Amino acid sequence: MQFISSVKNEQIKQLKKLHTKKGRRQHQRYLLEGEHLVQEALAAKVELSQLYVTQDFINHDVHHLIKQYHDQTTLITPEVAQSLAETITPQGIFAVTNLVKPALPTSWSGQWLLLDQVQDPGNVGTMVRTADAAGLKGVVLSSDSVDVYQSKVQRAMQGSQFHLPVFTADLLPVVTQMQQQKIPVWGTLVDRQAISYQQIAPQANWALIMGNEAHGLNSTLTAMTDQNIYIPLSGQAESLNVAVAAGVLMFSLR
Amino acid sequence: MQFISSVKNEQIKQLKKLHTKKGRRQHQRYLLEGEHLVQEALAAKVELSQLYVTQDFINHDVHHLIKQYHDQTTLITPEVAQSLAETITPQGIFAVTNLVKPALPTSWSGQWLLLDQVQDPGNVGTMVRTADAAGLKGVVLSSDSVDVYQSKVQRAMQGSQFHLPVFTADLLPVVTQMQQQKIPVWGTLVDRQAISYQQIAPQANWALIMGNEAHGLNSTLTAMTDQNIYIPLSGQAESLNVAVAAGVLMFSLR
Repeated sequence: MQFISSVKNEQIKQLKKLHTKKGRRQHQRYLLEGEHLVQEALAAKVELSQLYVTQDFINHDVHHLIKQYHDQTTLITPEVAQSLAETITPQGIFAVTNLVKPALPTSWSGQWLLLDQVQDPGNVGTMVRTADAAGLKGVVLSSDSVDVYQSKVQRAMQGSQFHLPVFTADLLPVVTQMQQQKIPVWGTLVDRQAISYQQIAPQANWALIMGNEAHGLNSTLTAMTDQNIYIPLSGQAESLNVAVAAGVLMFSLR
Repeated sequence: MQFISSVKNEQIKQLKKLHTKKGRRQHQRYLLEGEHLVQEALAAKVELSQLYVTQDFINHDVHHLIKQYHDQTTLITPEVAQSLAETITPQGIFAVTNLVKPALPTSWSGQWLLLDQVQDPGNVGTMVRTADAAGLKGVVLSSDSVDVYQSKVQRAMQGSQFHLPVFTADLLPVVTQMQQQKIPVWGTLVDRQAISYQQIAPQANWALIMGNEAHGLNSTLTAMTDQNIYIPLSGQAESLNVAVAAGVLMFSLR
């Protein structure tokens, strides 16, 4: 087992590049932090190229995570773990895995969540996790949404990227293709033509588009949708958090 | 109009104490940051004792926020604003207002959200905002939940504390009193006796308890509830984010 004790070690410097989108693209890899995410990756039989763990983690490795990857495991000091971590109290386990860029389907079926320019990493991650829990087929993020491999998105996803495909693509051609294939596409918008989500009967195939936190859905998309829907609010709050709204809609429409 | 240009100014030092729970308790006041929260406070006719604004904010004060409080307004430099702020890009407006500790009702009716030991400020704030949007009567936080006047909770609440009462109290006597008054109390838990939330018919009076993110509801509470309910999940995700789960339940049960 290799041992790294310096935060200035060249390998650690290279690893830290995976904290940026540019670094992840360049190396076609990303970093998993924490026991739960590494466990989820292993459960999904995702190949890990390297593991970095502290002695403290090894001593408490009740799930025998590092057994399987013993030859690719590097022991690091708590200081190195702290310098690698993007959480305040790191659990002392990191793994490197390949960026997955699944090819977009050409034939669509089932229930889909489409995210248009959603910017908050916690919101994006929470919506992917909710889509997973609601049994959706997959998620498509617009190319200008936040990067799905960013650490905050990952923490909120809780490993759901290993359970359902998360694509990044331009939404316009996706929506066009879905509609050609008779998948109803619903936008979230309050306008004169919009109807309450409760008027939509549950059905097997659909796509739901959630928009940007501040600006909502872009108008090109809202003009293309088969129907725009909204959640009637009773109190004085002007709106719902986008991830809560997505949850209410997905669990009602599924 | 008073003018403060030093981050070491005594008044600014005192204001910063309102960033801590201890400071807020001692002074019985808290700090509102940002245009939206100050606007919400004014809309709710909440008394503000002081306003602190930058010249830049005054120049763009399209809603004439500071007109009303001209005599209690202090002009601050961008540096002072930055030192006071708990956001990365402050909007240059802060207001001081009184801590509100409404007395607990003794007679309960309507729909209530009870939060047991919820720790994440974003989750607590989002649930208060959702309770507002769903038209609930109010929210009761357990005494060991995160402080509702913390800045991150406030940012997630988006001013909902001005729309519905948010109490902090021991939940046990509250639940007991509600049950004595024939309000059904529902816990969120997966156990043998639990039923799907979809089996519960919407009704006028109820209380829903959401538990801690990691540990769920404490067992004393789950044993007291009239019925424990859960959200059936279809995918591989183990659970929902607590604020998303609360949203799905409140909008289904209301």
